[in-house]
Amino acid sequence: MEQENIMDIPENGLLSKSIPEPSLRRLPKYLNLLIRLKNQGREIVSCTHISKALQVDPTLVRKDLSFTGMKGKPKTGFPITGLINSIEVFLNLKNIKEAFMVGAGNLGSALLRYDGFARYGLRIVAAFDNNPDKIGGEINGIKVLGVDKLQNLARRMHIHIGIITVPALAAQEMADMMIESGIKAIWNFSSMEISVPDHIFVINENLANSFAVLSHKLGQIQSAQNE
Amino acid sequence: MEQENIMDIPENGLLSKSIPEPSLRRLPKYLNLLIRLKNQGREIVSCTHISKALQVDPTLVRKDLSFTGMKGKPKTGFPITGLINSIEVFLNLKNIKEAFMVGAGNLGSALLRYDGFARYGLRIVAAFDNNPDKIGGEINGIKVLGVDKLQNLARRMHIHIGIITVPALAAQEMADMMIESGIKAIWNFSSMEISVPDHIFVINENLANSFAVLSHKLGQIQSAQNE
Repeated sequence: MEQENIMDIPENGLLSKSIPEPSLRRLPKYLNLLIRLKNQGREIVSCTHISKALQVDPTLVRKDLSFTGMKGKPKTGFPITGLINSIEVFLNLKNIKEAFMVGAGNLGSALLRYDGFARYGLRIVAAFDNNPDKIGGEINGIKVLGVDKLQNLARRMHIHIGIITVPALAAQEMADMMIESGIKAIWNFSSMEISVPDHIFVINENLANSFAVLSHKLGQIQSAQNE
Repeated sequence: MEQENIMDIPENGLLSKSIPEPSLRRLPKYLNLLIRLKNQGREIVSCTHISKALQVDPTLVRKDLSFTGMKGKPKTGFPITGLINSIEVFLNLKNIKEAFMVGAGNLGSALLRYDGFARYGLRIVAAFDNNPDKIGGEINGIKVLGVDKLQNLARRMHIHIGIITVPALAAQEMADMMIESGIKAIWNFSSMEISVPDHIFVINENLANSFAVLSHKLGQIQSAQNE
């Protein structure tokens, strides 16, 4: 069971009155479950059902869902279609969100070829790289341009999301450049965490660091078994 | 500043005497910083230096590093090469860790083409898929085999890491199959969280859910600016 005291979660700056991040991170999980239940022909779901299916404390489920503005009816629960809709609206998934990606190397190209974010409204409209072999090319129909074009285009196109897939040492510079041209939310896949002003939102998605955690745990499991 | 009370972090099962996960997740960040400092020619580093560079409370830095068995000298600090070595050993990064990947679709192929995990000792030795168009092929030099071959091969090759990149509805079945054939640690990229027995370690790496968080925050920032 996932449990925590919601009151203990630190919040900061601009977003201080907002949903705590752990609650926010559970909403897409509820959404996935609800879509499956809907596809199975169900119309109503209770917090208890969600709690059991996802191993999250029922009080937390109720609290999390209340942030979306939906209140379930006692003893009947939530209408599934309505709940799906309010989570999608709350997560801003229904709007198309245009993004620029900087770094069209291995990981960048990989993410450009992956279309799993499209149903959440993400549209990567251009990629940027310094490598002359890549500039002018296309990956999965997305143009690769020189990094020198990024700022002007981001301003003209009112791009608000930047995805960073450059090597560690270039990440902060790219982030600064993006922020200067009006980008407000950064999804950073480089191995370097970036510093940003308070009004900018960043997710540091370091896959290599996740693997390091897995690697340590595996080592631990293996030595426990050899004892 | 990243701050937390280490004593509050819940731990469970087999790994109960181990390092708390937030500390574990910071170690690769220290490692990246230390490698940069070493490349700049530095030989000694203090907790205060690490603390300032990474915006982590200095008490936490000291605590985190103590898990690796390294103790710094008061007023001088840590020898960088020694500290790099003990973090790498602690994270089990120096051993080659062979892995199987199930799912050679968009995300799977993308990850097979990405070589950023190699320096942490990850070697994906085969991929598995149900799609006859993919079976028998190769991606980045890695063979794609039928899913029916997975269990036998995992046992024979003593594979301990499974990477899941199949669609949500197939994820649990693939995880069960992997665990049955001796896999001990699973890196799950599907959009469905999987349930595993206590002795198996899982990282659920749901990129679409991360994007949902980014999407919500962006919506919030934009409406704050329109008010």
